[in-house]
Amino acid sequence: MNNSIPDVVKVMNQMGLAAKDSVRALAIADTSAKVLALTHAATCIRQKSGEILAANQIDAQNAKTNELSNALVDRLKLDESRLESMASGLEAIASFEDPVGRILKFWTRPNGLRIERVSTPLGVIGVIYESRPNVTADAGALCLMAGNAVILRGGSDSENSSRAIHACLVEGLKHANLPPDAIQLVPTTDRAAVGAMLTGLHNCIDVIVPRGGKSLVGRVQAECRVPVFAHLEGICHIYVDATSSVEMATDVVTNAKMRRPGICGAAETLLIEQSAVKSHLAPIVDSLVAQGCEIRGDETVCGFVEGCTEATEEDWSTEYLAPILSVKAVSGLDAAIDHVRRYSSGHTESILSNDEAAVERFLNEVDSAILMHNASTQFADGGEFGMGAEIGIATGKMHARGPIGLEQLTSFKYRVRGDGQVRP
Amino acid sequence: MNNSIPDVVKVMNQMGLAAKDSVRALAIADTSAKVLALTHAATCIRQKSGEILAANQIDAQNAKTNELSNALVDRLKLDESRLESMASGLEAIASFEDPVGRILKFWTRPNGLRIERVSTPLGVIGVIYESRPNVTADAGALCLMAGNAVILRGGSDSENSSRAIHACLVEGLKHANLPPDAIQLVPTTDRAAVGAMLTGLHNCIDVIVPRGGKSLVGRVQAECRVPVFAHLEGICHIYVDATSSVEMATDVVTNAKMRRPGICGAAETLLIEQSAVKSHLAPIVDSLVAQGCEIRGDETVCGFVEGCTEATEEDWSTEYLAPILSVKAVSGLDAAIDHVRRYSSGHTESILSNDEAAVERFLNEVDSAILMHNASTQFADGGEFGMGAEIGIATGKMHARGPIGLEQLTSFKYRVRGDGQVRP
Repeated sequence: MNNSIPDVVKVMNQMGLAAKDSVRALAIADTSAKVLALTHAATCIRQKSGEILAANQIDAQNAKTNELSNALVDRLKLDESRLESMASGLEAIASFEDPVGRILKFWTRPNGLRIERVSTPLGVIGVIYESRPNVTADAGALCLMAGNAVILRGGSDSENSSRAIHACLVEGLKHANLPPDAIQLVPTTDRAAVGAMLTGLHNCIDVIVPRGGKSLVGRVQAECRVPVFAHLEGICHIYVDATSSVEMATDVVTNAKMRRPGICGAAETLLIEQSAVKSHLAPIVDSLVAQGCEIRGDETVCGFVEGCTEATEEDWSTEYLAPILSVKAVSGLDAAIDHVRRYSSGHTESILSNDEAAVERFLNEVDSAILMHNASTQFADGGEFGMGAEIGIATGKMHARGPIGLEQLTSFKYRVRGDGQVRP
Repeated sequence: MNNSIPDVVKVMNQMGLAAKDSVRALAIADTSAKVLALTHAATCIRQKSGEILAANQIDAQNAKTNELSNALVDRLKLDESRLESMASGLEAIASFEDPVGRILKFWTRPNGLRIERVSTPLGVIGVIYESRPNVTADAGALCLMAGNAVILRGGSDSENSSRAIHACLVEGLKHANLPPDAIQLVPTTDRAAVGAMLTGLHNCIDVIVPRGGKSLVGRVQAECRVPVFAHLEGICHIYVDATSSVEMATDVVTNAKMRRPGICGAAETLLIEQSAVKSHLAPIVDSLVAQGCEIRGDETVCGFVEGCTEATEEDWSTEYLAPILSVKAVSGLDAAIDHVRRYSSGHTESILSNDEAAVERFLNEVDSAILMHNASTQFADGGEFGMGAEIGIATGKMHARGPIGLEQLTSFKYRVRGDGQVRP
């Protein structure tokens, strides 16, 4: 597994320069060239499925030797059906509208200057991810379609799989006469490579997207010298008030927690209006418990729920990523908003209510990236938003916020057309 | 002049927390309240002009005692007419459309979820500036109108003036029942205050805007742990090709360099197509020299221009901010683009040409914040763009790029409205 190379920093800087060199050609690449590269890569993945699966076998074997958890082994494992969705994922990205070169705004000044704000690629994107090999294809394709060069640094657990998938992306680039350095894969799992990326490789990298657990994202956010698109945690809240339909609240809360408890959009805390405890709490909790959820409640909640564990202060700021839900009774909307503003990680919150004024206040006064009304927090996803694939979800306030799709991987510039205007 | 206070970091952290506390009220403040605060502040500036000018007198006196340059003294000096334009500047900002709460995009998903992207304030903005006291009013007003809290750190040279102007802004806030901590002025000129702001004051500050010379901006960019909206330099280029009108090229180049040689949008390098040297160079240079401009040319250029100094490699990457222009003959469009991509600071470039294809290539292939055609680079300005006042010009690719007006001082969030949708 140890494929360390002699001078990591030098190699990384060369990769950065090569990426930067390809930026100019990418920024003006025809949509058709980008589409060709991606569809050809998809074909390659289908044609070379044998090779890719063999590489993946080696990774799976190593994972067992290294005694990785079953969950980790499952994440890195590929089969024909996962390869097919990887290939069709590339084709889906190729079918999106090209996000580059769109006139975002257009106006004319009294002196006749015509000003356009036009979308441009960001430049060079560094993606640092863990064991899922499909990120190699997804992230590479999204960055390319948005006209960016990308440097991919996959996890050591899936390095053979990523290398085989990356080879197909490069075949696609070559087939479309695009610079092969547009999508590069870091050739070493040496951790110094990550350090080099975080310092921006001599100003070659414009933005870093970390995909993985809290320790990876935390390290990137703490050490990175270039902008980061990421969320550290998804401590998502649902607030249920007394005007909400009991049946809907039961369905939505259960889905928000239990559909997939391990994703960032899963609810971690339920806030229930005091006056709704009698009517709403039992059916919601029964449904959760029937699906295997553990309830950690405050005093009020535990008074109503059998087998409830008393929540500690820590529970309110914990992202369980597991079938556990903290539940708190609150006096009303203001207390709910205060709780969310204090404990939320700024990712996604939902209000279940039929009180229009309360809904508007919640949507406007809570400052998270995504606010929902009468809907499951698990809709926090680029695909569900209709943005197509996403490279992640961001909670920062700059640039990308919420799902990071093609549009969020672009910047813009101004084109100003005149006929000899000088400034008085 | 030394007004150092015992525990700067503690005071700064308290300011950060106070700013953050005011953010919630500001984000949902009615447009009318913000307008009232600004118009009342304008009235206050007019009414208290005597006090403000007296405070400014002290600054001017100190400046002389400290033997500041005449240029610096001129920058900090206020008079009745400068105060009046400060007051009417506040009223102008109050008259702009409120940038907060605008639906930037709206769409409905097949499952009935209605998704809105809505503009929100950024949060807390730190503005670090040098001697111009009018920045206190401009920056404070722009940040407030965009719903942000702001921490202003003015230069020590103008501290008395800034304090008097700031008092009027706070009067406006109080008059409009907005939190007085929405616009705070750092009460010390201790440099440790800047250090504290650059580390983000315990995550209270969302973005830093430095306004000033290269050494200030360079320090902020190097040390800042939060996002920065800024440009380090404005090394702006004009490319003149053989198809351009000689008369227009003469007027535009002269204006781009000499209208105000010291601003960031002033041209620093002229690139002239080899085949245009005979026809265009003499009239352009004559006009520049007549206005007192020094020419530093390459060999070709110096062969045609009397009194031309030979340009060194350093000249091509120098922002003169003075009546000096470096001039280079290039073989054509590709060489011009190559030169710009190599030496530009990414601020503003202009092409003077009547060759449509060349113009489109220049506008698309040069990756600077602002690209002009047949117009002076000195139009690189928020006011000239019709954005109203600006707080600066940014060359970064994230979020704000080009002039930073009200719209650029906002972020966004998603509001998602459903009727009980759960994710399959």
